Amino acid sequence: MPPVTDDRYELRPVARIQSPLTDLAAAPKQAHEGAPEAWIVFDADMLDALDGLRPGDDVVVLTWLHRSDRAVLRVHPRGDVANPIQGVFSTRSPARPNPIGLHEVRILAIDGGRVRVSALEAIDGTPVLDVKPVLRPA
Amino acid sequence: MPPVTDDRYELRPVARIQSPLTDLAAAPKQAHEGAPEAWIVFDADMLDALDGLRPGDDVVVLTWLHRSDRAVLRVHPRGDVANPIQGVFSTRSPARPNPIGLHEVRILAIDGGRVRVSALEAIDGTPVLDVKPVLRPA
Repeated sequence: MPPVTDDRYELRPVARIQSPLTDLAAAPKQAHEGAPEAWIVFDADMLDALDGLRPGDDVVVLTWLHRSDRAVLRVHPRGDVANPIQGVFSTRSPARPNPIGLHEVRILAIDGGRVRVSALEAIDGTPVLDVKPVLRPA
Repeated sequence: MPPVTDDRYELRPVARIQSPLTDLAAAPKQAHEGAPEAWIVFDADMLDALDGLRPGDDVVVLTWLHRSDRAVLRVHPRGDVANPIQGVFSTRSPARPNPIGLHEVRILAIDGGRVRVSALEAIDGTPVLDVKPVLRPA
C-alpha cells in the first residue's frame, strides 16, 4: 500500500476571521491569554449551513493557520528554547504538517452571514474551514 | 476582495486509522455509542512528530472523513428525518464543506509509528490529518 502521505485533499474555506489582531508575532498563543472577540464572516453561498446556530451556543471553530511552516515536525513548545524540543503532535504549535487551528468559542451575536464570537486568538484574515457544536458528555 | 471560498489549501494526511469498523452505515455516530479501540498508523516520515506522546495522554485526533458529501449544507441531524432540517455547522454531521472529524481519545499504547487509542468511531482506512493534546482549563 502506498504511504497515506502521498494522498492529497483539497480544503475550500467557508469564511474568514475579522479581528483587531493583525500582528502574528504579537497575537496571544491561546484564547485565554488576552485574545479579543472576533467576527467570522461567511461567504454568501454558505448561509444555509449557518441555519440553527444561536447566540449562546458553544462551538469549535476550525481555522487554516495559513502562515504556519508545514515542514516542521519538532518544536520548542511555545517557541521558548527553555522548553525541551518535542514532536508537534504533543504540542499546540501552529507549525505542523496540517496547520488546522481549533478554537472553542461562544457565539455572541449573529448578523446575517457574520457571527460574533468570544475570545479568539487567530489573526485577521485567517481562513475558516468549519464550525461544529461542542459535544458535552451526556 | 474575492470570496474566501475561491481559495484552496492542500491537506497531506500523516496517518491512517486501522479499525475493526469497516461498514460506514453500521459505524457508531459518536465514540461513546460503542466505538472500538483503534490504531493510528503513521507514515515513517512522521515519526519525529510523535516524540513526546505518552500512554495516558488525552488527545484530539483530526481525521478527513473521505466518504462524506461536501456539497451538503443542511441535514436532518443524525440522519433522522424526525429531526428538523438545519445547517451543518450546528450539527456534527460528517456531510459538510470540509469534512474534518474531531475525535477526543486517550492514548493506550505506542508501538513505533503505531498509536493505540480508546473508542474511535472512524472507519478503517480513514486518513488522519493531525493529533493535538487536549487543553484543559487552567
